Amino acid sequence: MTHEKHDGSAVSVLGLGQMGTRLAQAFLAAGHATTVWNRGAVKADALVTQGAVRARSAGDAVVASPLVVVCLPDYATVAEVLGPVAAGLRGRTLVNLTSGTPEDAVRTAGWAAGHGADYLDGAAMSGTRLVGRAEALFVLSGSADAFARHRAVLAGLGNATYLGADPALAPVYDTALFGLAWGALAGFHHAAALAGAAGVAPADFAAVATGHMPFVASLMTDHARQIADGRFPDDDGTVAVHTAAMEHLVETSSAHGIGTQVPRLITDLLEQAVALGHGADGIAAVSRVIGGGEGDV
Amino acid sequence: MTHEKHDGSAVSVLGLGQMGTRLAQAFLAAGHATTVWNRGAVKADALVTQGAVRARSAGDAVVASPLVVVCLPDYATVAEVLGPVAAGLRGRTLVNLTSGTPEDAVRTAGWAAGHGADYLDGAAMSGTRLVGRAEALFVLSGSADAFARHRAVLAGLGNATYLGADPALAPVYDTALFGLAWGALAGFHHAAALAGAAGVAPADFAAVATGHMPFVASLMTDHARQIADGRFPDDDGTVAVHTAAMEHLVETSSAHGIGTQVPRLITDLLEQAVALGHGADGIAAVSRVIGGGEGDV
Repeated sequence: MTHEKHDGSAVSVLGLGQMGTRLAQAFLAAGHATTVWNRGAVKADALVTQGAVRARSAGDAVVASPLVVVCLPDYATVAEVLGPVAAGLRGRTLVNLTSGTPEDAVRTAGWAAGHGADYLDGAAMSGTRLVGRAEALFVLSGSADAFARHRAVLAGLGNATYLGADPALAPVYDTALFGLAWGALAGFHHAAALAGAAGVAPADFAAVATGHMPFVASLMTDHARQIADGRFPDDDGTVAVHTAAMEHLVETSSAHGIGTQVPRLITDLLEQAVALGHGADGIAAVSRVIGGGEGDV
Repeated sequence: MTHEKHDGSAVSVLGLGQMGTRLAQAFLAAGHATTVWNRGAVKADALVTQGAVRARSAGDAVVASPLVVVCLPDYATVAEVLGPVAAGLRGRTLVNLTSGTPEDAVRTAGWAAGHGADYLDGAAMSGTRLVGRAEALFVLSGSADAFARHRAVLAGLGNATYLGADPALAPVYDTALFGLAWGALAGFHHAAALAGAAGVAPADFAAVATGHMPFVASLMTDHARQIADGRFPDDDGTVAVHTAAMEHLVETSSAHGIGTQVPRLITDLLEQAVALGHGADGIAAVSRVIGGGEGDV
């Protein structure tokens, strides 16, 4: 049975691309009455059969729920879609999961406030497939009250994490975590290639590599504390020792016909840390090369 | 009470540097009678008070236990220490956690076989602090029988993972995982700096970042399967889309005075993947740039 009423739903989702569709499905799966709207109506059909209410217009979708989630291609589209229906946002919470810059987020938060709406900027960090599962990280920033009020519904998306009152935080984390993920992936592809050259199947290597990541994550926690303290104890080896080991990895990679891009980058960073006088310090001193831009090559 | 007899212990540890000491402590903590030896006797004192038996010589240490674990500065020292006492290894299992190359491991396995000993080459992947805990990864390769026989004792070290019969596998994984960890750490330091430029404290960023790593690890598993299949579906976005996003990250980093080394490396890798015709493929196509050495710059 599908819901026939437009009012009384818990959440409205505007924008039914790949991500928006998954968001609506996750809200429905979590048992929340969900209104959906898309510029092209056809994308809502499958969701309606899954129990969603189709709004006739963006304006109807906005007023249907106290929580309005938009996930559109870009901020220009957000302005096009919400601009004409802004009056309907008064007293509601707008959660904007559209990808954008910190400036976009701050500007849109101001716009929402001007129309009497609470605002949360957000980013989906874990792709579309995991949406609704505990591993799916959504970062949200802006109104603390709005997050507290809608926390239970937002939890239907997965791990909905509130970052703070500055709406710019979500896009900042979005961008930073994107770079972090790619650093790890580049390291993985190099490592898998090196293991592959020794006859190790990618899946076999991945099984061990993923088991190693909790330790790597624990180093991140340690390094964060050291960055904050401005002190770099050598509990996990000195910069000088790691430099030598990384130079060895460049040679080993080269000898096996594997791209040396990743270990050469790391070697460069470590050598710059040595040049800055951190050779005898712990490896988190590499933050002095990356963080300040001083060692940028 | 300390054990007075040299025979009858479960495991002997030769080499009591920082790691060797932690290994012996972990065996003792797991309830295994442990014999210890170090070239300089003083390092054994603390372990003896913790219940270890001190061997008078390397030869005594070797014959004291069916399982002989060595952790020495390098393979030259292994040869110096074990060469004169090789006869004592007959019928025992030698586990060598000394850092070295795949060639070192294969040569030493052959040497051990020549003296009637089973051999496992190994590497401690998680530093010294975690030894004895489940997160401490030890990779081991060589005799499957020996691993099965001593699995229960080796489990006292942490997550003792058997990789396969080729003794070279442990140093191969050691080297590969070292590069992987550094890729992730470089990504983390860049990301923490970028978040820091927006006023986010390192520990706050690390808390969210480490929560994101299980997702990143799941991407590694996906990518491994795609590498094996030689097909790169775009479930997590195309190379072209990620290239544009990474170029944006370079600009954002630069605008905030943050080192652009990491995002520029990733941009280079992605652009090379585009140049190889993978622009519309999924991001795991970057393996074609790193894996084959073809895109090495």
